[in-house]
Amino acid sequence: MKFKADRATLLKALAHIQSVAEKRNTIPILANVLIAVQGGKLTLTATDMEIAIVEEVAATSSRDGSTTAPASVLFEIVRKLPDGAEVELDQAGGDAPLALRAGRYATSLNVLGVDDFPSMTAGTLPHRFMIGSGVLRGLIDRSRFAISTEETRYYLNGIYLHPAKGDTGDMLRAVATDGHRLARVETELPAGAAGMPGVIVPRKTVGEVRKLLDEAGEQVEIALSDTRIQFTIGTVMLTSKLIDGTFPEYERVIPRDNDKILRVGKKDFSDAVARVSAISQERSRPVKLTLERHLLTLSAASADQGTAKEELDEGRVSYDSGPIEIGFQARYLNDITDQIEKDVEFAFSDSAAPTVVRDVDSPSALYVLMPMRV
Amino acid sequence: MKFKADRATLLKALAHIQSVAEKRNTIPILANVLIAVQGGKLTLTATDMEIAIVEEVAATSSRDGSTTAPASVLFEIVRKLPDGAEVELDQAGGDAPLALRAGRYATSLNVLGVDDFPSMTAGTLPHRFMIGSGVLRGLIDRSRFAISTEETRYYLNGIYLHPAKGDTGDMLRAVATDGHRLARVETELPAGAAGMPGVIVPRKTVGEVRKLLDEAGEQVEIALSDTRIQFTIGTVMLTSKLIDGTFPEYERVIPRDNDKILRVGKKDFSDAVARVSAISQERSRPVKLTLERHLLTLSAASADQGTAKEELDEGRVSYDSGPIEIGFQARYLNDITDQIEKDVEFAFSDSAAPTVVRDVDSPSALYVLMPMRV
Repeated sequence: MKFKADRATLLKALAHIQSVAEKRNTIPILANVLIAVQGGKLTLTATDMEIAIVEEVAATSSRDGSTTAPASVLFEIVRKLPDGAEVELDQAGGDAPLALRAGRYATSLNVLGVDDFPSMTAGTLPHRFMIGSGVLRGLIDRSRFAISTEETRYYLNGIYLHPAKGDTGDMLRAVATDGHRLARVETELPAGAAGMPGVIVPRKTVGEVRKLLDEAGEQVEIALSDTRIQFTIGTVMLTSKLIDGTFPEYERVIPRDNDKILRVGKKDFSDAVARVSAISQERSRPVKLTLERHLLTLSAASADQGTAKEELDEGRVSYDSGPIEIGFQARYLNDITDQIEKDVEFAFSDSAAPTVVRDVDSPSALYVLMPMRV
Repeated sequence: MKFKADRATLLKALAHIQSVAEKRNTIPILANVLIAVQGGKLTLTATDMEIAIVEEVAATSSRDGSTTAPASVLFEIVRKLPDGAEVELDQAGGDAPLALRAGRYATSLNVLGVDDFPSMTAGTLPHRFMIGSGVLRGLIDRSRFAISTEETRYYLNGIYLHPAKGDTGDMLRAVATDGHRLARVETELPAGAAGMPGVIVPRKTVGEVRKLLDEAGEQVEIALSDTRIQFTIGTVMLTSKLIDGTFPEYERVIPRDNDKILRVGKKDFSDAVARVSAISQERSRPVKLTLERHLLTLSAASADQGTAKEELDEGRVSYDSGPIEIGFQARYLNDITDQIEKDVEFAFSDSAAPTVVRDVDSPSALYVLMPMRV
């Protein structure tokens, strides 16, 4: 195997690759990237046995062949080469070291045989559709914060992607919840996605896909079966196992009749939450919202430090229902308002019942937040 | 005590204050800032019993008095107030809570009595001189990286500041060493510094002073005794204990007769070190320099990963002496070249002897580096 590639092109691909490769190093070859030139085409592959990433890289090849070398070392070396450098990689086959040359720099890397490199097969992927990369970004960004990190509830450790009937027709939905809050984001069901099963996309996959979307073109292809999902993003193909579990019937926890409606500017609200919760150093900093007609008072107390409160009055809030007092974790409020552009709408029932939060300007996202006693 | 201050002014002062205040919270009052209005003047004070910082803050006061409140909570609150806000602080005396108001935000902070706030006395400071803040910054930046972190050799845990005879007359010197490398930086002895004792300024003090220098005016005043040093930087006065120990006779470890002289561009050299050492993931990554006439080869090897080398030849290096092979820790080389603007000069003796490193354009700094076996 022998080829030359531009440093910037190689670096970009290795950045994706080393992110997927296993870092814990329990099985050495999982830390390696598979470098293959076949029919003059260069591909880089990495896998942690849950996710596999394959990227085609523009290169000038002069000999077919393949080998595997440590992904993170290769990434570090290429990162430190001068901008504009031409990088040559050369490996004679078998256990021969991989030579990398750029100008008067040369390295000789130990390799592991390609035969031991695990292949993760996708199997047949009967469902296949295109989706705008901006749309997919929106589905991910507005739901991933609610993914559970509790390993015992493994079926909550991802985003539940599924078709559903929405108010405006057939939708593709992304839902995540950790039991304390829930995010439900939807978009018009893409052609080809009708009939797809509901699937739970694991957290790490969500993160890797999200990074790739930063550099994506307009459209992304998604293909899936009951057990695998595959994203084709430009020259990158990422295949992932799905979480084998049943996502809860989330629609049952979304209240339908909350009729106490508060509207408030996102920045006014989140700034006030930050200031009021600064009094407490606890991780679960609770903030109390006290509502009267056109007056929202945010308050917090810490046994050690004291108390804080801030009022947002008419002109900054609109609230026309009966008085209510309700408490939330500050960071849960922030996680939601971080997704909101301009104005937030809260729909309350009472101080013990789940609250619905929406972006006033974007009906495609809906959040549910459990109150906490304050 | 009652005063109003501009949010930005208060925030800047609290940033300095909370940095000095004790964070480990073993003695609660050391986490507090002493807020005092006397004769209409506002001062903020914090101490960790090693360092005390006192800052005068522009404020409009309407009642004298003093109290203490948690520095980091106050800092976080003021940081989150809107830019341009006017902040009012009000405390009725004794154990009464400290009220902070800004617009419709209000907090009530628990206080601790001022009587329990420890005062760190400076005593008489017989030596007193002015120094340019840029000059002091240079002394610190080019020496602090070599400060030892080994607590058993406590007398190396700071910068040794002392008057000395240099090649060009009486100098003020800053020296730091951890036994592996040494940095000696000097400047013309300021008027008033003659006769001062050699003092060891602790690492934390060096760090706090360095932060204050980012916003300093042209001149800084230093006053000191055998046991205390005081920096007056604008409206901030920082007093610190000195390390009670004897700094080693460092001049004895500076080789005088190293005559194998290598000159190389700082960027060429440090980039090559980075690329070559990327092969190894060890913390003490060794890099070998192999010198022949007008040719420098940098190389590194890792049992796991392989080998790497880079050549810098005529036009990029100047070296006219006999061949030599010598090894150094990559990060020790980087720490020194980070301080160098353009061209580095190495003066070698042999592969087991200390090497002298200089900034070609700045004779005021000298570094000594111990080789390692490679």
